[in-house]
Amino acid sequence: MKKNYLLTPGPTPLPPEVLEALAKPMIHHRTPQFQAILKEAVDGLKYVYQTKSDVYIFSSSGTGAMEAAVCNLLSPGDSAITVESGKFGERWTELCSAYGIKAEVIKVPWGKAVTATDIKSHIAHRTSHIKAVFVTLCETSTGVTTDIKSIANALKDTDTVLVVDAISGLGVIDLKTDDWGVDVVVSGSQKGLMLPPGLGFISVSQKAGKLVNESKSPRYYFDLRAAKKAWEQTDTPFTTSVSLVVALNAALKMIKTEGLENVFNRCKKMAEAVKAAAKALGLKLYAEESYASNAITAVCVPSGIDGEKLVKTMRDTYGITIAGGQAELKGKVFRVASMGYLNEFDIILALSCLEKILHQMGYAFQLGSGIKAAQEVFLK
Amino acid sequence: MKKNYLLTPGPTPLPPEVLEALAKPMIHHRTPQFQAILKEAVDGLKYVYQTKSDVYIFSSSGTGAMEAAVCNLLSPGDSAITVESGKFGERWTELCSAYGIKAEVIKVPWGKAVTATDIKSHIAHRTSHIKAVFVTLCETSTGVTTDIKSIANALKDTDTVLVVDAISGLGVIDLKTDDWGVDVVVSGSQKGLMLPPGLGFISVSQKAGKLVNESKSPRYYFDLRAAKKAWEQTDTPFTTSVSLVVALNAALKMIKTEGLENVFNRCKKMAEAVKAAAKALGLKLYAEESYASNAITAVCVPSGIDGEKLVKTMRDTYGITIAGGQAELKGKVFRVASMGYLNEFDIILALSCLEKILHQMGYAFQLGSGIKAAQEVFLK
Repeated sequence: MKKNYLLTPGPTPLPPEVLEALAKPMIHHRTPQFQAILKEAVDGLKYVYQTKSDVYIFSSSGTGAMEAAVCNLLSPGDSAITVESGKFGERWTELCSAYGIKAEVIKVPWGKAVTATDIKSHIAHRTSHIKAVFVTLCETSTGVTTDIKSIANALKDTDTVLVVDAISGLGVIDLKTDDWGVDVVVSGSQKGLMLPPGLGFISVSQKAGKLVNESKSPRYYFDLRAAKKAWEQTDTPFTTSVSLVVALNAALKMIKTEGLENVFNRCKKMAEAVKAAAKALGLKLYAEESYASNAITAVCVPSGIDGEKLVKTMRDTYGITIAGGQAELKGKVFRVASMGYLNEFDIILALSCLEKILHQMGYAFQLGSGIKAAQEVFLK
Repeated sequence: MKKNYLLTPGPTPLPPEVLEALAKPMIHHRTPQFQAILKEAVDGLKYVYQTKSDVYIFSSSGTGAMEAAVCNLLSPGDSAITVESGKFGERWTELCSAYGIKAEVIKVPWGKAVTATDIKSHIAHRTSHIKAVFVTLCETSTGVTTDIKSIANALKDTDTVLVVDAISGLGVIDLKTDDWGVDVVVSGSQKGLMLPPGLGFISVSQKAGKLVNESKSPRYYFDLRAAKKAWEQTDTPFTTSVSLVVALNAALKMIKTEGLENVFNRCKKMAEAVKAAAKALGLKLYAEESYASNAITAVCVPSGIDGEKLVKTMRDTYGITIAGGQAELKGKVFRVASMGYLNEFDIILALSCLEKILHQMGYAFQLGSGIKAAQEVFLK
C-alpha cells in the first residue's frame, strides 16, 4: 500500500477543510453572497500579511502577481534593483527586462542572501534614480531567507519602494508588512496558505499606490487601478476563481485559529528538525546557517549518491514527494518543505523514508540517527 | 427548504464528477504523474476546440487569455479591427488601447452581430494594414451569436488573423476552428466546460504563430513563446492551477462521452425552449431572431415590472440564479443560460420560478403557458 505525502515547497498538502470547500457547489461571483466571501478573504489576507493596506487577489499563479508589481510600479526606462541569488530572484530581472525597465542586478552567491548594506551601497554609487528594489523573502531554490526588516528600514525614508516576493514565505516566516514598512508584498496560494495553486496576492502601500497611478507600462488583466476601482464595489475586475476564494476562507480560518505566531513557530521547528537530522546523517546544508530558511531546507547530496534517483525513488516507490535541485543545483541538493499543512510527524516520516533510501543506496550512517535528532528538536 | 440552482452565463453549475475531482489531494505539478494529466487535458481541449493546433492553458480568467491574444499577436502602433456590439466586444478595444494598438472599432447595434460583409468592407476602405480582427462568438451581454464561419472565410486568404473570444461559446455552439480557418480561439473554464473559473485557454494556428514571434509588445506571464517552450517538455512556464486541470479532465471526459454534437444539440434545445416560453408569456426577446444565441437568451423585462427585483427575488427567495442586464441593459433584460451542466429539467424549473414571480409581480399571462411551450420544444 503506497500512501502519498507532499513535502515540496509548493504546492503543499491540502487540509480536509480546504478539500471540502473546493467541493462545494458553484455560486455566482457577482452576488451579495459572494461579496461577503470576498470581503472575508481580503480581511483574512490582511491578517496574514500583517497590513492595513489594500490586498488584491488575482486569478493567477504567484508570478502573475509579480508581473502586477513590475508593470504597475514602473514605466519603460525606469531603473530598479533586482537581486539574483537563486532561480526566483532572476524572475524579477526577467520581468523588468520584459517591460523595458533597467534592472540593476546585485548578484549574490547562491546559498547567501542580500543585505541592507549591499543595497544601500549599490544605491549610493548610482546617479540614476532607483524607483524600486525587488527582493525575495524565501528563495525556494536555495533555502535562503532574506532579512527584509533591515532592507525595509534602509529604504524607509527614501522614495524607493521595496517589493518583496513572499510567495514561499507568507504565512511561514514572520513578515511585518506595515511595521517594517514594506511597500509591496506578492504571494501565492499554494504554499503557506495551504491551497491549490491559482491565486496570486499583492499588497500595496500608500507610497506604492502613487507609483501605480504614474506608471506608463501597458497592462490590463493585472492593472491595479482596475482592481482598486472594482474593490470599491467589493468586486474584482474580472471573474475570479470562485472555488479557490471559498477555499481560501477555510484555510485562513485555520491559520487564525492556530495563530500566526504559532504557525511561524511550527514551521521553524520543522525546519530545525530537518537541519538537525541532516547534520546527524553527516549531510551538509546548502544554505549558510545564518541565512537558512524556516520554509524550506536544501540539503547537499553526498558524493557517490545519485540525487535525482533519490528524489525519484522516494516519490515513485514510496509516495513521498520532496523536491530535487533546480537549474544549477539539479542533482546536487534535495529540498524538504516545512510550510503549510505539515507537522512534526510528516517530517519524521519523510526522514524515515530518506534514511531508508540512503541506506539502500549504500550511504554509510547510523540508521535512526537522523530521526532521533529531529525528535530531540520536537521535544524541546 | 431553499435549494440553489445556477442558470447564469458563467459560472455554470459543477457536475458531481468535477466536484469530486476538485476535492482530490494535491499532487506536485512537475512530476510525470501531473505531466500525464496535463497531456490528457490538452488533448481533450483540442477535441472541444476541433483543432490540431496547439492549445495552451493559463491560470487566469478568460480575460487573461484575451490579453494573451492581443499582446502576443500585435505590436504597439499596429492596427486591428474590434467589434463592439455588447460589453465583451468592448473588452477587445480596451485591451488594444492598453497595448498601444490602433483599434478600428466597428459598432454594431446591441442585439445584432457583425457580418463578414461589414468586416470586408471596412478593410477595403482602409490603407493601413489590419493585422488582426477580434470578434466575439457569443456576446453574453446581449445573447447574440456571430457567424464566425463566414468571417473566417472572408479572411482566409489574407494575412489578417481572426481572433475569436469563445469564452461563452466553446463547448456550447459549434466552432470548427481548423475547418473554418480560425487562427486564435480564446476561452475560459466556467462556461461550457463546467468548471470553476480560473483557467483560460488559447489555440494558436500556424499563421498566428508567426505573429507571436514578431510581436514587440511587453509580456511575461501571458507570453506564448514561453508557453510553447514549456509545452515541448509537457510543462507550463509557471505553476498551473493543478486542481482545476485535474477537474478539467473530469469535465472533458463527460463531454467526450456525450459527444460534442449532442452537447451542441442539448444547448440548442434548451435555448429554443427558453425562447418559446418567453414568447408564450408575451415577452420580447432582446436579440434579433437570426442572431439569437444557443448559449444564452436575453429576455426583455415587460414594462411595469422591476427587472432587477425579478432577478433578485428568484435568487434570494427561491435560490434560482439567472442573470440581470449589464451596462446599458441593467434592469431592462434578464438572461437565462443554456450551457454547461444543465438539461431540460433545469430549464423547466427556472421557468416555473419565473412564471411564479411574474404572477406575483402582477404581470398578466396564463400560468403554465411558458412551461408548456418549453415542454413542446423538448418533446420534438
